[in-house]
Amino acid sequence: MAMKLYDYGTAPNPRKVRIFLAEKGVEYELVQVDMTKREHKSPEFLKMNPSGKVPVLELDDGRYLSESIAICRYLEGVYPQPNLFGTDPFEMGHIEMRNRQMETELWSQIGVSWVNGPVMAKAGIYTQIPEAKAASDVNVKNYYERLDGELAASDYIAGSRFTVADITLLTGVDFASTMVGLKPDESLRNLWRWHALVSSRDSVDALQ
Amino acid sequence: MAMKLYDYGTAPNPRKVRIFLAEKGVEYELVQVDMTKREHKSPEFLKMNPSGKVPVLELDDGRYLSESIAICRYLEGVYPQPNLFGTDPFEMGHIEMRNRQMETELWSQIGVSWVNGPVMAKAGIYTQIPEAKAASDVNVKNYYERLDGELAASDYIAGSRFTVADITLLTGVDFASTMVGLKPDESLRNLWRWHALVSSRDSVDALQ
Repeated sequence: MAMKLYDYGTAPNPRKVRIFLAEKGVEYELVQVDMTKREHKSPEFLKMNPSGKVPVLELDDGRYLSESIAICRYLEGVYPQPNLFGTDPFEMGHIEMRNRQMETELWSQIGVSWVNGPVMAKAGIYTQIPEAKAASDVNVKNYYERLDGELAASDYIAGSRFTVADITLLTGVDFASTMVGLKPDESLRNLWRWHALVSSRDSVDALQ
Repeated sequence: MAMKLYDYGTAPNPRKVRIFLAEKGVEYELVQVDMTKREHKSPEFLKMNPSGKVPVLELDDGRYLSESIAICRYLEGVYPQPNLFGTDPFEMGHIEMRNRQMETELWSQIGVSWVNGPVMAKAGIYTQIPEAKAASDVNVKNYYERLDGELAASDYIAGSRFTVADITLLTGVDFASTMVGLKPDESLRNLWRWHALVSSRDSVDALQ
């Protein structure tokens, strides 16, 4: 029995895990959860993940893990090669730091723009706060500029090789570009050079 | 030369690292950064952490790490005992999952209530969005109820022993209670039982 990954096509968090699994060369079964039908809030799904979010990994012994980076960390333990989280304590700390900066400083702001943007307004799930979206749109654009500066001195986002932090940034930027109307400006050449480098990897699926 | 931790008294993220270091029994030097004077945005500080946030750990070789959980992960690598991040891949994934749920589902909402609350309104740094605070206040209270249910079946937040996820939850709840006006209701007996258990540890400093 293979592992199962509960996924939803355009959602960025399951995409992180799909790229991570492809880097590791692991076989698994993909199960689609239709978020437009609120299947991720069904009683069956909440038994796997009480938070009602994709992705969920079902292990071959029937245990579950959720939260994309937690799933990746489990996979790193079981399939250590290629290393994506760091090999010594300082590198592990540094990669975690960079990954968290991408999450708390960029993804969080993309998320605010997403839940207060036109797609989610139509879904009618959250009270819309246009002032929050106005602020987060600006924060995302400013952060792209910071990243462009940082990537002038570095091929990858957490040092000289591809790591989980690149996966987090790529999936965030692609989601922002295609679903949230926050594509980085063409003038940000270092950011786009990094984007082309990372997107060319065999593990990175074409955008849906 | 000892490690230095750049700290600010009432900030919850440096407190995470202080508790973690005390659990490990590691000696270090504490350096206060006066956030009310914006010292964390000074050119000197930004050289250590371009994100302009505490905590920062300065290693004895002069390298720096920021982001509280990234610092903790570095420390776990250098000082493996007592283990606080898990010992096998599944436990490591499970603790990371629980830690992240505390961050993305609780801390993030406490943060919205904090930046849109009276202390920060007075500081005049962020545009105040009262609708955002109204929503996050409700989310925090609902999440406390969920936690109370989960803690009916478990002594600790990520299994049967104290882990980094308990540190994250404790520092979040204490910050929310003392600085954000979001103290859990007295009726949440499992949450308060857990709070007393965790607060009684030698590593947990008294609240400022």
